[in-house]
Amino acid sequence: MQRVKAVVSYEGTFFSGWQKQPGKRTVQEEIETALISIQKGQKTKVTASGRTDASVHAIAQVIHFDTSLSIPADKWPKAINSKLPEDIQIKEAEYTSSDFHARFDAVEKEYRYRVLPKREKDIFRRNTTFFYPYPIEVAEIKKAAAYLKGTHDFSSFCASGTDVVNMVRTVYKAEVLEKGDELHFIFRGNGFLYNMVRIMVGTLLEVGKGMRRPEDILEVIYTKKRSAAGKTAPGHALYLWEVCYEK
Amino acid sequence: MQRVKAVVSYEGTFFSGWQKQPGKRTVQEEIETALISIQKGQKTKVTASGRTDASVHAIAQVIHFDTSLSIPADKWPKAINSKLPEDIQIKEAEYTSSDFHARFDAVEKEYRYRVLPKREKDIFRRNTTFFYPYPIEVAEIKKAAAYLKGTHDFSSFCASGTDVVNMVRTVYKAEVLEKGDELHFIFRGNGFLYNMVRIMVGTLLEVGKGMRRPEDILEVIYTKKRSAAGKTAPGHALYLWEVCYEK
Repeated sequence: MQRVKAVVSYEGTFFSGWQKQPGKRTVQEEIETALISIQKGQKTKVTASGRTDASVHAIAQVIHFDTSLSIPADKWPKAINSKLPEDIQIKEAEYTSSDFHARFDAVEKEYRYRVLPKREKDIFRRNTTFFYPYPIEVAEIKKAAAYLKGTHDFSSFCASGTDVVNMVRTVYKAEVLEKGDELHFIFRGNGFLYNMVRIMVGTLLEVGKGMRRPEDILEVIYTKKRSAAGKTAPGHALYLWEVCYEK
Repeated sequence: MQRVKAVVSYEGTFFSGWQKQPGKRTVQEEIETALISIQKGQKTKVTASGRTDASVHAIAQVIHFDTSLSIPADKWPKAINSKLPEDIQIKEAEYTSSDFHARFDAVEKEYRYRVLPKREKDIFRRNTTFFYPYPIEVAEIKKAAAYLKGTHDFSSFCASGTDVVNMVRTVYKAEVLEKGDELHFIFRGNGFLYNMVRIMVGTLLEVGKGMRRPEDILEVIYTKKRSAAGKTAPGHALYLWEVCYEK
């Protein structure tokens, strides 16, 4: 058996997220089904760097799986893609050591979030951006985002009901860029809690609308209660952008 | 009764085109159904500037219909949009004279076509661009496009089987722009034959690939036979961009 590490892109629109669930269309199930077909019936479990929710997209999710097939590494993407639906794509693959783990070995992740702050909807971006038809102050959002950087207990930015004990994470980057008519939120960190990015975006947008001041973000962090933060922004504008591992 | 002129945008991906057909999901049917609902059961025929085929998009299709409702003109878009699915959107509406006709009065149309000339697919643009993984010479395509401008008999660029008699059309603009990693084809003219834009794009791409020289376009035009031109490019990367009327 050999372990394969691969980079996967998917459009989340028509998926109930990454993780297998009976009766639902999921990315994990589609990839595992493709692998069964390539491996002539042999089943394989595919492990990702982390789950993504329904309608969340991935530019570069990282996965691993074990196989007894010995296809040259650079032929793996084409082999799997030929069995995958058109909203999932394997972008790269390589053989890796048998103790590599896509989830436990990840040391850094980047998420991005696309907001469309316009008065008029764009039907072509309805599944890929968060339509936000309110006047917003971008400069205030940028100031507020800076307060999220650093090592904090992010309990206020974690959806309730998770069983994670340690809520401390380090955010290396929290930036807001104007790209054409969109606002792109970029977050890099050593890990993210459940719904953390979507709650950060929702809270920053409330700053943009004038409902909170930029410096209020500090208090939201210190309060350590989900109720202190803003609304959870919807999943369909969130992108898992990159996952990094130690060399 | 008053006649309403409106501008409509739609993503063609999940439509069998503009025109009503039994058992198919079409844009015309969706808009007429929305109008029945607004007009409390009263049926209305909606006329467009022209049909669009399955999977073809519209940024600004123009339509007209007659109504006995007297909603203020600027409230019409919101009223119809509230009854429309999320892949169709009324962008503007105005009352117009009772002899205005969206199709017969159109004097100029613009179509655009998006090509993605890269080695690697982009799943996020699979329904909106034509993935073309071949080396192409953009300068040659630009030269070739210039030959399409002017008043010509475009028989070579018309899908066979149409009952149009006069194949002469005037193309005012035939331009190719590099936009990011895409190639955008822009065509403006006083009218376009069936599949004309898609056949022009397919032929120009063959020039880009080196299968034809730019000046060969002239011969393709003079031959007046569909077989002289190139392949029909697929519909899902074509956009009806603008329709103009005389003041």
